[in-house]
Amino acid sequence: MMPTITAFERSPDGGRGLARDTRVRWAFEEVGQPYAVRLVSFAAMKEPAHRALHPFGQIPTYEEGDLVLFESGAIVFHIAERHAGLLPDGADARARAITWMFAALSTVEPPILELVTAKISERNEAWTAQRLPLVEDRIRSRLHELAARLGKAGWLDGAFSAGDLLMVSVLLRLRRSGLLDEFPSIAAYVARGEARPAYQRAFAAQLSVAKGQPPAGR
Amino acid sequence: MMPTITAFERSPDGGRGLARDTRVRWAFEEVGQPYAVRLVSFAAMKEPAHRALHPFGQIPTYEEGDLVLFESGAIVFHIAERHAGLLPDGADARARAITWMFAALSTVEPPILELVTAKISERNEAWTAQRLPLVEDRIRSRLHELAARLGKAGWLDGAFSAGDLLMVSVLLRLRRSGLLDEFPSIAAYVARGEARPAYQRAFAAQLSVAKGQPPAGR
Repeated sequence: MMPTITAFERSPDGGRGLARDTRVRWAFEEVGQPYAVRLVSFAAMKEPAHRALHPFGQIPTYEEGDLVLFESGAIVFHIAERHAGLLPDGADARARAITWMFAALSTVEPPILELVTAKISERNEAWTAQRLPLVEDRIRSRLHELAARLGKAGWLDGAFSAGDLLMVSVLLRLRRSGLLDEFPSIAAYVARGEARPAYQRAFAAQLSVAKGQPPAGR
Repeated sequence: MMPTITAFERSPDGGRGLARDTRVRWAFEEVGQPYAVRLVSFAAMKEPAHRALHPFGQIPTYEEGDLVLFESGAIVFHIAERHAGLLPDGADARARAITWMFAALSTVEPPILELVTAKISERNEAWTAQRLPLVEDRIRSRLHELAARLGKAGWLDGAFSAGDLLMVSVLLRLRRSGLLDEFPSIAAYVARGEARPAYQRAFAAQLSVAKGQPPAGR
């Protein structure tokens, strides 16, 4: 049975690919699996029918028969566990790739979410202009550490994995801030992710929604 | 071979169990596996030898033969995959438990980390007193949604799982804020987690470090 994911009916980013359905679309494209998409309005996301799928009233969700999942990290992992292409075969390499999935979401993304919150929810607060440099410095610390580990490698640990998929997805949120440009090796790493044909297809699919075309899965 | 984890030589919380080694100790205790602990000073955490294990210069790490992992979520998952007791047997129930692991770390913990940052790193900033209520309200939103999903259940999805282990661990960071007391069902859920014998043993083990006793594993 083809799984169905949910995505924003109108993505807040207008199709720049930063909504979390893009990560899941990318995973499907990497492993070559078809999927269907159901669009959800902001109002519907907060209603009981959607909250039964996603307790925090967000997208994406994943439905396949009786199974319902949420959290883009968990959905990417579910896809990666079931189809070849996103996790290495060796047990140790697989565990390290999973470590990078958690690192992307638990260590690198939180300070980036703080920046998003500062620029959106706290945009008009008196303190925001003064506070932003502190938030940005916390992100710089993480990027500095990430660059040190990445070195001259193409991906974080051997071949491209679900860890890279999530790390690139998280880092893409920084593009407009200019912070990526301060770390050329990280910017190049993100560009390598974006250049993957699977990412290109995922990006095009979410963009077609923003352009008002019918919600195509794969 | 017995795995070795790292923990703070002097935990910033003085033994209240909020450092992330406690989550990993708890997982080892739930599955009844022995582990060793190596303590690391703040200075050593930032040096190349430790950064070779943990690129972000933090604890815990996990070493077992040639395998090196970091990220408490990834380590808990690694333990849960290899030993019975933290993930259900059924494929669907297992995927849902993993979803709650990611939900704890990616959806519930980030606003809690913002509060920690506001109270520690930004403690002396002019804006902090005015800003704290906004940060707390973002946490309240999550707790409200979590309470709605939990309902009258004992755990998030059937039997206790690694998802509950991480969710309780994340929520424990809120105890001193008073926010848990506003949500009695969440406070009771956290108390159920703390009452588990495995948690009690993990808590005692990390406390013994704070009290200056030798770093006992299990």
